[in-house]
Amino acid sequence: MKLYTAPRAPNPRRVAMFMAEKGIALPLQNVDLGAGEHRSESYLALNPFGRLPALELDDGRVLCETRAICTYLEGLHPSPNLMGESAEERAFIEMADRRIELHLFAIAANAIRHCHPGFAPLENPQFPDFGTSQGEKFRENARWLDGVLAAQPYVAGQRFTIADITAFCAFDFARGLMKFRPAEQGLMHLQAWRDRIAERPSASAGT
Amino acid sequence: MKLYTAPRAPNPRRVAMFMAEKGIALPLQNVDLGAGEHRSESYLALNPFGRLPALELDDGRVLCETRAICTYLEGLHPSPNLMGESAEERAFIEMADRRIELHLFAIAANAIRHCHPGFAPLENPQFPDFGTSQGEKFRENARWLDGVLAAQPYVAGQRFTIADITAFCAFDFARGLMKFRPAEQGLMHLQAWRDRIAERPSASAGT
Repeated sequence: MKLYTAPRAPNPRRVAMFMAEKGIALPLQNVDLGAGEHRSESYLALNPFGRLPALELDDGRVLCETRAICTYLEGLHPSPNLMGESAEERAFIEMADRRIELHLFAIAANAIRHCHPGFAPLENPQFPDFGTSQGEKFRENARWLDGVLAAQPYVAGQRFTIADITAFCAFDFARGLMKFRPAEQGLMHLQAWRDRIAERPSASAGT
Repeated sequence: MKLYTAPRAPNPRRVAMFMAEKGIALPLQNVDLGAGEHRSESYLALNPFGRLPALELDDGRVLCETRAICTYLEGLHPSPNLMGESAEERAFIEMADRRIELHLFAIAANAIRHCHPGFAPLENPQFPDFGTSQGEKFRENARWLDGVLAAQPYVAGQRFTIADITAFCAFDFARGLMKFRPAEQGLMHLQAWRDRIAERPSASAGT
């Protein structure tokens, strides 16, 4: 197997952190986003959408999409469990993960890709007014998550799961490119959770 | 259990079609989107994001997010399998489903919500230029799916899965509100697949 990845990019980082939690090591191939290597003919043959990460299996098939790669790795390395043991637990963790993806991760990505001049080549055309509006939604949804974390220690409930990884990578992306700090918005539960996750050895994976 | 749903809305329709394929019947409660019932205090207590569908379990917990609800129902009613038997198959079906969600379903939703005057109360503010650009991306991504369906009979491969449901509901949403017809764009494999899925008894569920 070989994992196509890109240091610091938020989706590759989710998979790197997931692997670090499970102690999985894989051969890595870095794809240079700055040089547009993800748009090269050879990479588009692996993933027609030019997105990262992508996992090339030994039989030549290519598995794309962050969460699908995690599902596959969870099957190969079940412990520690990060996506749920039973179908019921899997469903509730998927709900939490999905809410983070839709209401925080994707919204931060929209805000950054449509507003940040460095993303003009990736998001063409940019719609800055849309991006600004998404930035406001991000702050509003961060407030929702602060309320969730007032009542439970982790994003999906009582234990660390993939939903914490997704959320941590979303907030670190927003921290770097939107200068977003939960404590500065009065979101103290979110800040405390963020600082707790940042202490895990996996937090530096993929950076 | 009770399923909160809304006739004709695309996400509730995905769950309705999934249930019809499995022969699952549940008590339903319709939420009147036109009357803003999804924004009522009582519904927001069930789902703070005001989205549909939502599944209320007998123990009072509420499971939201379309795909998470399907994961739960697949656990209760494993046959016919729609989301994969092994972790490996689950991962490849999740990849296909995710690509449809990100590159077609969400893009169509953006195009419609930001351009259609009927969605002004739901998407406030609307960004029509962004919506128009998303409509172009939708057409481009439909061409990608046409290529996929030239090589295999179903969205995720050789058999009908949840990814076909997601894609069918995305194209029916686009058919109604973007007047999109694959054949008119020269996408004959996509049109043939669409017409084949439309013949399944489940295709009218949730409409």
